[in-house]
Amino acid sequence: MTVLEKINAPQDVKKLSIAEMNNLAEDIRKAILNRVNSIGGHLGPDLGIAEATIAIHYVFNSPEDKFVYDVSHQVYPHKMLTGRKHGFLDSSRFHEISGYSNPSESEHDHFVIGHTSTSVSLATGLAKARDLKGEKYNVIALIGDGSLSGGEAYEGFNNAAELNSNMIIIVNDNEMSIAPNYGGLYKNLAELRKTNGQTVNNVFKAIGFDYYYVEEGNDIEALIRTFENVKDINHPTVVHIHTLKGKGYEPAVQDKETYHWQMPEFLNRESDNNGALSESYTSITKNFLLTKKQNNEPVIAITAATPGVFGFSADFREKMGKNFTDVGIAEEHAIAYASGLAKNGAKPVLCLMSSFVQRTYDQMSQDLALNNSPATVLIYWGGISGADMTHLCTFDIPLISNIPNIVYLAPTNKEEYMAMLEWSYNQNAHPVFIRVPSAELVSTGIPDDTDYSKLNKYKLVENGEKIAVIAAGSFFGLGQQVADELKKQTGIKATLINPRYLTGIDKELLETLKKEHKVVITLEDGELDGGFGEKVSRFYGNSDMKVLNFGAKKEFTDRVPIEELYKRYHLTKELIVQDIKEVL
Amino acid sequence: MTVLEKINAPQDVKKLSIAEMNNLAEDIRKAILNRVNSIGGHLGPDLGIAEATIAIHYVFNSPEDKFVYDVSHQVYPHKMLTGRKHGFLDSSRFHEISGYSNPSESEHDHFVIGHTSTSVSLATGLAKARDLKGEKYNVIALIGDGSLSGGEAYEGFNNAAELNSNMIIIVNDNEMSIAPNYGGLYKNLAELRKTNGQTVNNVFKAIGFDYYYVEEGNDIEALIRTFENVKDINHPTVVHIHTLKGKGYEPAVQDKETYHWQMPEFLNRESDNNGALSESYTSITKNFLLTKKQNNEPVIAITAATPGVFGFSADFREKMGKNFTDVGIAEEHAIAYASGLAKNGAKPVLCLMSSFVQRTYDQMSQDLALNNSPATVLIYWGGISGADMTHLCTFDIPLISNIPNIVYLAPTNKEEYMAMLEWSYNQNAHPVFIRVPSAELVSTGIPDDTDYSKLNKYKLVENGEKIAVIAAGSFFGLGQQVADELKKQTGIKATLINPRYLTGIDKELLETLKKEHKVVITLEDGELDGGFGEKVSRFYGNSDMKVLNFGAKKEFTDRVPIEELYKRYHLTKELIVQDIKEVL
Repeated sequence: MTVLEKINAPQDVKKLSIAEMNNLAEDIRKAILNRVNSIGGHLGPDLGIAEATIAIHYVFNSPEDKFVYDVSHQVYPHKMLTGRKHGFLDSSRFHEISGYSNPSESEHDHFVIGHTSTSVSLATGLAKARDLKGEKYNVIALIGDGSLSGGEAYEGFNNAAELNSNMIIIVNDNEMSIAPNYGGLYKNLAELRKTNGQTVNNVFKAIGFDYYYVEEGNDIEALIRTFENVKDINHPTVVHIHTLKGKGYEPAVQDKETYHWQMPEFLNRESDNNGALSESYTSITKNFLLTKKQNNEPVIAITAATPGVFGFSADFREKMGKNFTDVGIAEEHAIAYASGLAKNGAKPVLCLMSSFVQRTYDQMSQDLALNNSPATVLIYWGGISGADMTHLCTFDIPLISNIPNIVYLAPTNKEEYMAMLEWSYNQNAHPVFIRVPSAELVSTGIPDDTDYSKLNKYKLVENGEKIAVIAAGSFFGLGQQVADELKKQTGIKATLINPRYLTGIDKELLETLKKEHKVVITLEDGELDGGFGEKVSRFYGNSDMKVLNFGAKKEFTDRVPIEELYKRYHLTKELIVQDIKEVL
Repeated sequence: MTVLEKINAPQDVKKLSIAEMNNLAEDIRKAILNRVNSIGGHLGPDLGIAEATIAIHYVFNSPEDKFVYDVSHQVYPHKMLTGRKHGFLDSSRFHEISGYSNPSESEHDHFVIGHTSTSVSLATGLAKARDLKGEKYNVIALIGDGSLSGGEAYEGFNNAAELNSNMIIIVNDNEMSIAPNYGGLYKNLAELRKTNGQTVNNVFKAIGFDYYYVEEGNDIEALIRTFENVKDINHPTVVHIHTLKGKGYEPAVQDKETYHWQMPEFLNRESDNNGALSESYTSITKNFLLTKKQNNEPVIAITAATPGVFGFSADFREKMGKNFTDVGIAEEHAIAYASGLAKNGAKPVLCLMSSFVQRTYDQMSQDLALNNSPATVLIYWGGISGADMTHLCTFDIPLISNIPNIVYLAPTNKEEYMAMLEWSYNQNAHPVFIRVPSAELVSTGIPDDTDYSKLNKYKLVENGEKIAVIAAGSFFGLGQQVADELKKQTGIKATLINPRYLTGIDKELLETLKKEHKVVITLEDGELDGGFGEKVSRFYGNSDMKVLNFGAKKEFTDRVPIEELYKRYHLTKELIVQDIKEVL
């Protein structure tokens, strides 16, 4: 029996010797590799935090003492020590345990967390409530160095410093964000590491924190000593621990970026570049950017700490040189920075994932849209998915498309995407967002010569009668299927429309539909509330046209298989045709 | 002729002697008082920055050197020196010049700016574009100490530090935000001031900036010396200047919070508390909070640096004691903090202005809604207004109401507001937002005993036929007018509905309307796109019901009189009735 198998709750950790705890750390790492190799997940940061998690549970008393794990990239060992080891040891039960902090799983988790930089703010709330109620216990936020670049983290630190009571922030410094860190703060962390925490330049002390440094952040004894020192401390304190990302799995130590997160079966894979040669929306984007760079244009590719998602490999970054910026986990800055770049004649192309563009609304509105800065923003992964509830990508259309001045485009194939990208890059009139299709690459083979400066002109793909299908972006293929199915079941040849613009209504085209059509349906790969289809419903409100909007319900779904969601939302050709027949 | 009258462009400043520049500072202050006393505006920060602005234009060369003024609270002197003095001297032309940075007014302004903490990010974009194009000039961001608490500012600093080129950030430290500062950062600024910039604790140096301190931030010679030192510097540099907020107008020096911003005619007013005794939504909220505090409940009132907007005076803050937090300009933190408080059994009531709730979408979604934390958030000033384009309050319904799990309520009178507030405070199931009516207090005199836990139950106020008017929140009064006008013009007694919930549809009630009604109209005081009415349109899409949605168009309006907007959007009873008659 391994040590881990004997641990059912945090109190079991307290009975262990140092040697047993070191064995436990190895057991934890094996279990991490076991799970991630089976179902994918966060690898490097979890491997590195095993010892610290053991030391935390040895010293503190969860759940009375409350831990908040930033972004949950380091929460696996905590889960294993708090009654959830089956989620890492028993492959038949992996899916019972999510990859993120989740109170519905355990009283040892206090929040659902999956976006970065939130832990200190949330923990400050816990601590303040404790103080208001006159209670006594430790509140501990554990935040990685990467997450420190987000503005919410800073706002949290700034206010945590005002607590006149216990608050412990463990900064887990593994010298990496998802990709290498970027920004002035990281020079300070490097200096602190180099001087064993002794340099006078200390951003944490400067803003009012007590400060402890642990160079051997994978040494359980050293960690226990320091945690015992700060336990029950009566003022805000930072414990800066230096850990080894990927510890125990050498490829993850050598290539920290690649192994931050891994897909299933990575242990048996020879290379991570399988399929990288085939054409995709990602490769098209990269080639576009590299060509502009080679032509000496003032292009600048920007990411907020997730270059890998966009295929911005080390090689690509090197080729782009000064024409590439990874701003760190700082989406707000990324948008404002792009606005400044565009206003001064550079050509910013900012890539963001749908789930993370949520981190910047006011900047889209005030810094970008109000200034009509002609930046290009590419939104990846937008659409319904079986993702964890913290990483849903269903909300970007309502979020972005209701901001004035922004043009939000939804290409349906390669040629459209290339034409939109080229147009956006060259124009100077609008901030342009493009929802990069999350579906596989579709190519018509026919170059798209549309003039996209004529805003809100929908494309009439098939002219039919009675029923018009307006199918946006990655749901255009579904629209075609619906039209085919309608023909098959009813004999009606439906009109098929590719709207291309998510931010406006083609009044002229919609008006003409009134003549020969009774029903208009809209299809969008995202939340219906506040989205595209409702704008069409509003347009036809004063007419006899029937309108059916298809898309996602307003809800947070959690690892629900996509087929089940499509069924739930009536997003299959059969269910849609059935709904249409009911109103015919 | 005053010195100011002789200044037509920045080069005119360069010809002045120090004595003349000092006179110019006095002229500028008189002009500020002149304008603000006539049309209102930002007073204290502009009075304090006169000398620094003169020194900036003496040393640097605008517009080649580019200045970005954070939040525009300190932009008046800059406007006066860049060809816009008539906006401060000639009362017939005050309205030609906005109170905010505005490129359409002058080539010396580079962005429209009105929300805080954006300047460093925007300026970093300008500087990076300059470098990409191989150009040479100074890029200068001027940011007040108050604005430093916003996460976007920190994200900007973090990345500006990576520029290997010229970037000058002038931190205008007048020891105040809008209200007193709060947070660990401000302890550091105080220490820097106390030590003449010499303490080793230096947050700016810690994150990689060169650093200069000017204690006499209202001494033109001292400022010129330092600015000449840093002009054309080849790396990111902070110039920390200590200025006197309100300089030259003693009441503004003595009471910096009250005189941060002032209404017209403040010079002739004896007290700023006129009308403070009459009942209002503000006074009701304050009494509610104080009562909870007196009952020793774990209530906590939270503001993000604008306590005055909610009537949270110094006296109120003192009474609330530890049950009050001003988190600084840190709306993201405020939401996450409220979530943590609510999760740990405290009773947070967070007050935000509609325009500034925009600064926190992801926190509403991830930190609050995903966790279903039962915090209460009060949204003030929501609705169509004649505000500057940077301070519009028309977007909060689309922003908030499409986030799952959030309940967004729109009371129409005092009794409803009180019932909603009490319900929200006591329940533990949902994050609840309440759109505090921006209209004058309306009282029915009849306590509201609705059980608001029955979500999305609309209130049927008048049962009629043919036409149903669904009038939300502050537009309920307009709905009543429309019903009366319909009766007058057509004899039809319309059904009148107060929806009370902005986040959902009362399907049962809407279904029953189908029997006796042909037209449903919705009225909402905000943007139509993504808003409340479109949800009603979508609901009726498969039926014969005609639906007309009334609200604001998706656009940024800039100081357009509200009557003009109401006309433009058909938000008068006459225009609405006309539109209804067209579909009848």
